[in-house]
Amino acid sequence: MIEHLLTLDARDPLAHKRAEFTLPEGVVYLDGNSLGAMPRAVPDRLARVLHGEWGEALIRSWTAGADRGEDWMALPDRVAAKVARLIGAQAHEVAVGDSTSVNLFKVLAAALHLNPDRRVILTDAENFPTDLYVAQGLGELLGRGHELRRVPAREIAAQLTPDVAAVLLTEVDYRTGERLDMAAVTAAAHAQGVLTVWDLAHSAGAFPVDLRGAGADFAVGCGYKYLNGGPGAPAFVFVAERHLPHAPTALSGWMGHADPFEMERSYRPAENARRFVVGTPQVLSLSALDTALDVFEDVNLGDLRAKSLSLTDTFIELMAPLGERFPLTLATPLDHARRGSQVSYRHPDAARVMARLTGRGIIGDFRTPDILRFGFTPLYHSHLDVARAVLGVQAVLEEQA
Amino acid sequence: MIEHLLTLDARDPLAHKRAEFTLPEGVVYLDGNSLGAMPRAVPDRLARVLHGEWGEALIRSWTAGADRGEDWMALPDRVAAKVARLIGAQAHEVAVGDSTSVNLFKVLAAALHLNPDRRVILTDAENFPTDLYVAQGLGELLGRGHELRRVPAREIAAQLTPDVAAVLLTEVDYRTGERLDMAAVTAAAHAQGVLTVWDLAHSAGAFPVDLRGAGADFAVGCGYKYLNGGPGAPAFVFVAERHLPHAPTALSGWMGHADPFEMERSYRPAENARRFVVGTPQVLSLSALDTALDVFEDVNLGDLRAKSLSLTDTFIELMAPLGERFPLTLATPLDHARRGSQVSYRHPDAARVMARLTGRGIIGDFRTPDILRFGFTPLYHSHLDVARAVLGVQAVLEEQA
Repeated sequence: MIEHLLTLDARDPLAHKRAEFTLPEGVVYLDGNSLGAMPRAVPDRLARVLHGEWGEALIRSWTAGADRGEDWMALPDRVAAKVARLIGAQAHEVAVGDSTSVNLFKVLAAALHLNPDRRVILTDAENFPTDLYVAQGLGELLGRGHELRRVPAREIAAQLTPDVAAVLLTEVDYRTGERLDMAAVTAAAHAQGVLTVWDLAHSAGAFPVDLRGAGADFAVGCGYKYLNGGPGAPAFVFVAERHLPHAPTALSGWMGHADPFEMERSYRPAENARRFVVGTPQVLSLSALDTALDVFEDVNLGDLRAKSLSLTDTFIELMAPLGERFPLTLATPLDHARRGSQVSYRHPDAARVMARLTGRGIIGDFRTPDILRFGFTPLYHSHLDVARAVLGVQAVLEEQA
Repeated sequence: MIEHLLTLDARDPLAHKRAEFTLPEGVVYLDGNSLGAMPRAVPDRLARVLHGEWGEALIRSWTAGADRGEDWMALPDRVAAKVARLIGAQAHEVAVGDSTSVNLFKVLAAALHLNPDRRVILTDAENFPTDLYVAQGLGELLGRGHELRRVPAREIAAQLTPDVAAVLLTEVDYRTGERLDMAAVTAAAHAQGVLTVWDLAHSAGAFPVDLRGAGADFAVGCGYKYLNGGPGAPAFVFVAERHLPHAPTALSGWMGHADPFEMERSYRPAENARRFVVGTPQVLSLSALDTALDVFEDVNLGDLRAKSLSLTDTFIELMAPLGERFPLTLATPLDHARRGSQVSYRHPDAARVMARLTGRGIIGDFRTPDILRFGFTPLYHSHLDVARAVLGVQAVLEEQA
């Protein structure tokens, strides 16, 4: 078996990417879907931003080096272009900044505006909490009787009724790792006049996303999971080109203005998705994300997906014998088309199992109520790492038995 | 004259603070009200966050070291407590995160909610553009006929009519440096049932602000000007204790939830201002701000104000003779009570004058249409710096004549 894994690793076209990350000694880090590992080039970039751009050039850095793509002013746009490639978007359809939650507010508000006669936001009952909270908060703010209708994911298609303005879904379920069929759901939604808002938190950087191919309307996503942008990295927002001329920016700030330093008295939004940048970007965090995205530059996204599936297949296969001896239930679909880049198991004592695993340097995470979650990052995991992780799980379960 | 300035510098109780900042050689940096200089301790802090917290401890840093005040989870609260002292607030009335623009949206939305029968947001016609844009965007989103009424600052008191829900003012005008009387305006507003929303962009860290003393309702402010938190540093938001139980968070995210990791399906806001933290904080930028605020720890805010006035008085005095030879008009009030920590002049060719000044290492900034703006930061300027700046202005004006 180990020989087979070593062969897979030897043939891995992404094996060289591991050297571009800093990872702690003796740890198998399977939580890149919560916080991606640090790309090695980030500290040098931050040192340059701190000493050179902030400390030395100071205010001039907002515009200096614009011709070399080094000004802070256009930094959000440069980062957006790098994200666009990973999610199947055009650069002018993407903006980077703020948090996923705040960005979700922007696009949900735009979607409701574009579908003014409908009052329902349809969502997966098990969607990530902040998505639910944001929709709730927006509905209450609008005070026009919007309803957040939460139904099981498998019933979404059946619930696309004529009162639904927008359907809000996370493409990959944060607990089970189940991936929805974005193209099919989007088509079904459009057939009923429903706009789609996709949360790509567990998709972007994990596998190629094809927003344009799927015909998606709006999307948001996270910079600090598979994009490895650092803790709380700026998030992104996608607005399909066809909606750009009509999508209002509920959060209208000077950095989304067509000409910020003209300081006009009236808001005139930038023509492209830049209008969804609001206030001054957090340049230190944004610079880290910018450098982190460079890791993807020479990565073929087909290779990324193939390796991700190979890693998760391997994990599921090696874990199978443990499922016969211990109360472990696979929560992740076996079908490749329905799988993200993580594998989850239910276990009645999941919190304690994960605490012990972490103690042994196998870092995944626990999600209430009973989920053991293991994220696989094709850029820095080998098949041998997978085997190490399974040995750790086995040791913990045997200890506990 | 120079002897007098040297005497003032020798007696300056804040003189030792200069050594805590990195400033470029040969430059007099008078733009700390646009981007504060870098505190020397920031790069080391960022290196620890990058290598130790992100690179090595990874996801564990969210909770690790909570007993020593080192966890990321409570980082926004620790930073909020440091800001609170500078603005005359209690720690639980302040939240830190997002941008000034986004924070303004939150508190304006809360103010309109608390004054539901009124439809006017009253503001200074010359308020900073992003404040106007945010109010515009919120009004359009609500779609309930809110009006953004822009009047000259001196007419604000007369315009506090019964249709006004909230008055939105920047305490210190970003162009003229004129400071409003927060306590008087707030009292006048309250007498008419109007809530106050203060933008402290040019106040916090420049002089002691007394939000509680003034009876202010809401405030926002900037982390990257006088607080020296770095480019695009996280901003802050203040909600008076009496409003906390009733102020809704239009932007409801998981990091403002009473128990984020419980992942409840319904939003239940934190009891204190933490509810105004929305998504995951940008930890790199927030850590820089945290360290930057430590510079204030041993600073008496009375000393800060006294030195600021001494610096601006000196500048105005030394510039006076130039006003007789060149078309310079002082735009900043002579009255101390009406002055922030900057001095501005109008000049018909202001943009070119500032470009030449910057070329000589005297960095202030130009604001449309004709403003030369010089910001004074009592933590890192000496009276000798003021004299150097004036000599630079003189040289440029003589050159141009």
